[in-house]
Amino acid sequence: MGRVTERRRVVRVRDGAVSERPDTLVAEEPLEIRLNGRPLAVTMRTPGDDFALAAGFLVSEGVLGRPEELANIVYCAGATEQADGTVRNSYNVVDVRLAPGVPVPDITLERNVYTTSSCGLCGKASLDAVRTTARWPVGDGGGPGGRGPLRIDPAVLAALPDRLRAAQKVFDRTGGLHAAALFSPEGELLDLREDVGRHNAVDKLVGRALTEGRLPLSRSVLLVSGRASFELAQKAVMAGVPVLAAVSAPSSLAVDLAAETGLTLVGFLRGTSMNVYSGEHRLALAGARG
Amino acid sequence: MGRVTERRRVVRVRDGAVSERPDTLVAEEPLEIRLNGRPLAVTMRTPGDDFALAAGFLVSEGVLGRPEELANIVYCAGATEQADGTVRNSYNVVDVRLAPGVPVPDITLERNVYTTSSCGLCGKASLDAVRTTARWPVGDGGGPGGRGPLRIDPAVLAALPDRLRAAQKVFDRTGGLHAAALFSPEGELLDLREDVGRHNAVDKLVGRALTEGRLPLSRSVLLVSGRASFELAQKAVMAGVPVLAAVSAPSSLAVDLAAETGLTLVGFLRGTSMNVYSGEHRLALAGARG
Repeated sequence: MGRVTERRRVVRVRDGAVSERPDTLVAEEPLEIRLNGRPLAVTMRTPGDDFALAAGFLVSEGVLGRPEELANIVYCAGATEQADGTVRNSYNVVDVRLAPGVPVPDITLERNVYTTSSCGLCGKASLDAVRTTARWPVGDGGGPGGRGPLRIDPAVLAALPDRLRAAQKVFDRTGGLHAAALFSPEGELLDLREDVGRHNAVDKLVGRALTEGRLPLSRSVLLVSGRASFELAQKAVMAGVPVLAAVSAPSSLAVDLAAETGLTLVGFLRGTSMNVYSGEHRLALAGARG
Repeated sequence: MGRVTERRRVVRVRDGAVSERPDTLVAEEPLEIRLNGRPLAVTMRTPGDDFALAAGFLVSEGVLGRPEELANIVYCAGATEQADGTVRNSYNVVDVRLAPGVPVPDITLERNVYTTSSCGLCGKASLDAVRTTARWPVGDGGGPGGRGPLRIDPAVLAALPDRLRAAQKVFDRTGGLHAAALFSPEGELLDLREDVGRHNAVDKLVGRALTEGRLPLSRSVLLVSGRASFELAQKAVMAGVPVLAAVSAPSSLAVDLAAETGLTLVGFLRGTSMNVYSGEHRLALAGARG
């Protein structure tokens, strides 16, 4: 695609000195995700890995869980009609086609599907919706490579943010991206995605894992460069990730979801410090408790 | 409401030492916004200023522009039915009622209303949609307090992030909030909102301004604590804000929208440095250009 970054003119002010030059910005474009031809959602994303983004989004929504449930994903041809009547593909509309027999859900189109519930609207309802749509429990044994209970050395966790940062290529040029990465329990970087939207970066990771048959991600640590919101915790749970670590703070509802599902949630992962909000049994924590 | 923060147990790890204590987290709860009784959108937000959030959201969508177009906003009573049949108000569903005669738009419910367009989907279509729905041009003369062209000293801009940070009360306790603030051209803090979602913080500012008759905000600088996405630039334009400043990077589409509408867009506002991506005529830039 080659549209991960774009160049724009910028007027730079540095201690009163003014200069003009080209600047590299993170690209942002809308992506419409269709399901069997029907518009489902629009997200503002950084172009690239669009099929993975669409697939991962549908994993988060509980529509997809196994690669064979996905028939194919295509860019809708001629999605953009120009003023002169000619048609050009904007590469901003993808259609996800489910395999025959896979039920097409009746998804209502709202900002967060999980937050609408016939029983009313509250944090509890949001948690319930994740529990009822999850394909597998957050666990350590199931899935490819399952080898019993996952246990992680906090020193391994502490090293992850620097590895994430070192691998963030586009951030270095633009300063404008969120990153999400999957690591092995031993701290090996498995996959990394950058996007103008943090939820998109996670969806891209999860979508790739779906098509490669790696779901549930029961032997992976998901690290996000920013905060841990409910939405990110939900995506971790839906992908079967047992450990979500964030460089910054979690929200109350993210912590509640983690506690309810058994997700290990780590926040403020900085240097050798971290806060563990849920599931600390997966961390090899030694030493006296104060 | 008293739900801006919540307490949860946390296991703290500091250089190998482990301790357990209560921690203060930013509260996150779903809010459903209804328009004349019909569900319109759901956003994950920090409770508080919910009426302002709903009103500001509708300003961003082009539904509201003047206070008299708004009849009232109410929490839907009995929105949450409990398992035992009793009804409790979750204060998570608000209904915005338009004044008689105000057209109820046919808004399709997608993540970003502006990105769906019958002509296809691309960045240009997103820009067009803002232009066609904007109530007023981004300008300096119109609106309350209009006194001709706005011109801002870069030194005033440079001082704003520290003022924002100093006024962020909840961030100090949780580290988990985005902030948005309105400042006068002289750098006076006019209003500040914090929220787990950056778009919500801006909507809360704009909604308050609507009900107080301060739209368009043609004499205000909008400062956001993070990055400048298309969505935030769109909200600035829809509220008539002439200057949007961000502590971090803008996206390509935010810059394009700013250039097209005449919005002054400043990014990387740190210390005495800043990048001006559009509308530099509003900044009193002296000195030679390199």
